[in-house]
Amino acid sequence: MRDLIIIGAGPAGISAGIYAAWQQLDTLIVSKEIGGQIATKAVPIENYPGLKEIPSTDLIGRLQQHLEKFDVEIKMEEVNEINKQDSHFIIQTDKEELEAKSVIIATGADPRPLEVPGEKKLIGQGVSYCAVCDGPVYKGEEVVVAGGGNAGFETALFLSKYVKHVTILEFLPEVKADKINQQRIERKDSVEVITNAELKEIKGEEFVESVVYEDRESEEEKELEVKAIFIEIGRQPATAFVNDLVEFNEEDEIIVDRDNGATKTEGLFAAGDVTNVKFKQIVIAAGQGAKAALGVHQYLQNE
Amino acid sequence: MRDLIIIGAGPAGISAGIYAAWQQLDTLIVSKEIGGQIATKAVPIENYPGLKEIPSTDLIGRLQQHLEKFDVEIKMEEVNEINKQDSHFIIQTDKEELEAKSVIIATGADPRPLEVPGEKKLIGQGVSYCAVCDGPVYKGEEVVVAGGGNAGFETALFLSKYVKHVTILEFLPEVKADKINQQRIERKDSVEVITNAELKEIKGEEFVESVVYEDRESEEEKELEVKAIFIEIGRQPATAFVNDLVEFNEEDEIIVDRDNGATKTEGLFAAGDVTNVKFKQIVIAAGQGAKAALGVHQYLQNE
Repeated sequence: MRDLIIIGAGPAGISAGIYAAWQQLDTLIVSKEIGGQIATKAVPIENYPGLKEIPSTDLIGRLQQHLEKFDVEIKMEEVNEINKQDSHFIIQTDKEELEAKSVIIATGADPRPLEVPGEKKLIGQGVSYCAVCDGPVYKGEEVVVAGGGNAGFETALFLSKYVKHVTILEFLPEVKADKINQQRIERKDSVEVITNAELKEIKGEEFVESVVYEDRESEEEKELEVKAIFIEIGRQPATAFVNDLVEFNEEDEIIVDRDNGATKTEGLFAAGDVTNVKFKQIVIAAGQGAKAALGVHQYLQNE
Repeated sequence: MRDLIIIGAGPAGISAGIYAAWQQLDTLIVSKEIGGQIATKAVPIENYPGLKEIPSTDLIGRLQQHLEKFDVEIKMEEVNEINKQDSHFIIQTDKEELEAKSVIIATGADPRPLEVPGEKKLIGQGVSYCAVCDGPVYKGEEVVVAGGGNAGFETALFLSKYVKHVTILEFLPEVKADKINQQRIERKDSVEVITNAELKEIKGEEFVESVVYEDRESEEEKELEVKAIFIEIGRQPATAFVNDLVEFNEEDEIIVDRDNGATKTEGLFAAGDVTNVKFKQIVIAAGQGAKAALGVHQYLQNE
């Protein structure tokens, strides 16, 4: 039985791993992928203090190297269920059953779907939640980005290097992206921003052919002929495998003690974007990961 | 009048500066030095996620470069007083009066003195709170480190490269340093650890000549002939300039909202080791700095 299993290998999970190893806890990280949302980041990262501008893949590489230095084992498995038995935890993955005295949930957040007709059917056929993964395929084409927040603007900025034209559709009357991102988009002739646009349907037989939206002011329906739509309308905490061992807030985020990541269940901690920590940023998630590992260390010492 | 003045330029202050600049706030950092506690760190930093092992001076350099990229101005001044007038803040430094709509206090924590006879008189003459600054001077000599926590152990590890012999004196029956630090010290023949040792006096005319402690078990008084004592018995929040605009906990730490660094005064925020955030770590301070800057941004938008 291990001291600690960390579920998830984004900035929170990896930081927790580094801190747990530093405390010499016998630690395993279980995750279906490495890097979390960093891996889907469409632009270089400019706000992780100490690394003034770094491609997302390089940051993931650096975090991985840091873990390797401390010999923290990683299993590339997906966790399906977690239960507490007596004073320890049983974690069911898609491959095996694992046991640990404590657990940190750091599974982050998944893209939120639009939930409009055509979306599900055309995933991978022009509907994408990851411009870094799928964007370059649409070289020279016209595409739509759904969502006028930072993620939408960064996605449009990334896509503008490849595609002919990007239309950003934002539901609200104003975009929510940071000013710096707005200014960067303003300088791009090939990117257009339409606000007050409610997405209604994604059309296409085999592949995306067009996107239908309603102008919420005029109540007119409009159709854009595009080859792809990149959906960046927010994230939802990845908690499908978590049962009633934790409490959730209205946004389905795990409620934690901000000081040590503790949940309502003794020995079960959480960190990063899966939690109700207010601002979602890489360095904040890394800080919360460190706190959770130190919280675990203290918990195991008192056991 | 600026949007924001950040007091302090350790990891919390610099991270806040990066995030404030990113939000395009007109920001000034005022600090008497750069790097905060990183600058006094006696060993390379191994737990800032993404930088697997980095000398403290290099990390400070990287953080500074990051700030420079965003053109954040830094004034090397000491803040003596801060007051709120109407809805803005007036900051009195040793050189001038500054004004801002919001303030982040990120002044960190200063070394805690032993408060024994001889200590004050011999500061700089063998009494030191910074091994990095003063340690190499004592090449080939015998020295004492007061404090058996991580800082004490790291200081002893650093000193062992220069000095002939280090004695770590710890007040409690057991040292509190992490296991990894304990193991590293165990491998050093030139470092000895004495627990249950209550420091009583630092003796010397012009320079430190010896250190007197009581063995708390036998109640015997003992004297060690040494040329220097490095004091690492903890830190106290650097809040001398802060008046009743904030609330303090029992440890004299500023009580903040963990989500955004808000204090009891609107527009006044705090981050890092000066606050009541539980675990004091570089990445945690950096995360709190980011939170405070985002908190300020939200505050100014709602103003």
